[in-house]
Amino acid sequence: MADDWVAGADVGGTNVKFAVSDAAGRVLARGDVPTDPAAPLDTIQRLAAALRAVLPGDHKRLTAVGLACAGIVAPATGRLGRSPNLPGWQGSDLGGALRAAFGNIVTAVANDVNAALYGEYRHGAGRGCRDLVMIALGTGVGGGVLIDGKLVTGFADGAGEIGHMTLELEGPLCPCGNRGCLESYCGSVGLLARARQLAAAPEASAAWCELIRSQGEALTTSACHELAAAGDPTARALFAAAGRRLGQAVASLINVLAPERVIIGGGVAQAGEFFLVPCRDMVASHVMNDEARDTPVVPAELGPYAAATGAAALAREAGAVP
Amino acid sequence: MADDWVAGADVGGTNVKFAVSDAAGRVLARGDVPTDPAAPLDTIQRLAAALRAVLPGDHKRLTAVGLACAGIVAPATGRLGRSPNLPGWQGSDLGGALRAAFGNIVTAVANDVNAALYGEYRHGAGRGCRDLVMIALGTGVGGGVLIDGKLVTGFADGAGEIGHMTLELEGPLCPCGNRGCLESYCGSVGLLARARQLAAAPEASAAWCELIRSQGEALTTSACHELAAAGDPTARALFAAAGRRLGQAVASLINVLAPERVIIGGGVAQAGEFFLVPCRDMVASHVMNDEARDTPVVPAELGPYAAATGAAALAREAGAVP
Repeated sequence: MADDWVAGADVGGTNVKFAVSDAAGRVLARGDVPTDPAAPLDTIQRLAAALRAVLPGDHKRLTAVGLACAGIVAPATGRLGRSPNLPGWQGSDLGGALRAAFGNIVTAVANDVNAALYGEYRHGAGRGCRDLVMIALGTGVGGGVLIDGKLVTGFADGAGEIGHMTLELEGPLCPCGNRGCLESYCGSVGLLARARQLAAAPEASAAWCELIRSQGEALTTSACHELAAAGDPTARALFAAAGRRLGQAVASLINVLAPERVIIGGGVAQAGEFFLVPCRDMVASHVMNDEARDTPVVPAELGPYAAATGAAALAREAGAVP
Repeated sequence: MADDWVAGADVGGTNVKFAVSDAAGRVLARGDVPTDPAAPLDTIQRLAAALRAVLPGDHKRLTAVGLACAGIVAPATGRLGRSPNLPGWQGSDLGGALRAAFGNIVTAVANDVNAALYGEYRHGAGRGCRDLVMIALGTGVGGGVLIDGKLVTGFADGAGEIGHMTLELEGPLCPCGNRGCLESYCGSVGLLARARQLAAAPEASAAWCELIRSQGEALTTSACHELAAAGDPTARALFAAAGRRLGQAVASLINVLAPERVIIGGGVAQAGEFFLVPCRDMVASHVMNDEARDTPVVPAELGPYAAATGAAALAREAGAVP
């Protein structure tokens, strides 16, 4: 029915974000519950209780629920494979846990970046497109690919490791152990390491050196971004260099897949134009086909609830009569 | 009908290769006609005459014909866009030309590497897989992607430019004007340039220096391959270095798409194991997910008629009652 409500949730290392939406994707309620890193079933039961509490009126109007989770998720079976951020959840049957907690209801499970991409596709920056690539910049760098309106999960559900495209064989060390991965340039670990290196360069601004000295291990990409926004040249150089590397990866992805748009999401992406302008310059110079050189590279629109919103959309469509 | 025959043809810069096959993909006849670089319609009429001549018995058993062509092909409209090797064919309506030459018959048109990939998918190295990536090594480096049994053509039919993934921002100059593209390492132009450079290195073998000196501008990758097969260390180093770069690109593609297999085709690929062993080593060390590290990287099986065979398969399926 058109006014049925669906819920989506996004399991992170510390909490589970959830959103309830109607058929138009309008969000009716949002919230979160803590993640128990050792007890997926308990966490999902807590999620079900929280959803019942926020649903205005009769919670039985909930017809479907979708769950997004970091790690390798098998949408067909609902099982979670390797998940570095949630080791205690590895191997768990997320689909079964949803049905145990919610009763006889339509369920869908997906990888968190794939769910965020699907949310952007249905209700955000990818509306109206059938072919999309998304890159999520955070501590690590995740990715997702949508072809002809369908998420590409690949063999053994291993697709989307865009963060480990190798951009330079002898590049900086990546947390994965290889060198020169996109993540080594654009993940926050790599970005903050480069931020500290820049303070040792003779051309570093005084404000930059002061930031690095005063923050020490507490340095964040937001603090770097604030300096960039204030016009600091060293901060801007940091984001410009990372944006160029992001652009190298985006240009390669456009060359291979020719998506209609590329969506950049995640925390680090909040540095916005300082990142995206050099990224777009690289796309303009490194994409082969004339028609694709101005492929829009756009920021995500849905913010931290993107994956929950996308999981809800996937659940709604899993329950739709074909 | 199960024993209907279909024809496929592959338009190259100098000739059009054709193949007639039955429903099982068994090739019943093969041949070629010269390409008129200025007259697509004449060429296709010559193709139709040649096909009628080789068909045993009544040519009316031909129920569909597919055409593969280098360049940007729009499968939906049958029109050829930019095509550097066939500038005189740019903008021509290949689908219309097929119908003019063959009468009321089912037609399909595709980019040549996409057609070759489809041929390998239906009848060659990709049989039984639904998700494949193909890289065709020749003068340039082409590519194709198949997801869930469908060719990915992308926005403005621009997908598949795998040869222009950037593997090193400051790498060797590519014919496209950028640096460090896969093609700059693995296309025959780049490979032969590197071959000549190696002769100047102090560790170059005597046989290698003699080959480079005696062949001059006539040097071919086959001649380099013969020396590698004979055990020459410099020749082997040439292919090993190119194979590592091929592996860097293949590993990135596996990280992004997780295909079931990666197929390497084209002339340079005939250097076979000298190329593929270092390529597979790179895949094993640079693919993120354990399950995907041994993704098979295999040589193409169908040889120079792969694109014609694939075009025939596409035409057969275009005509199939759903």
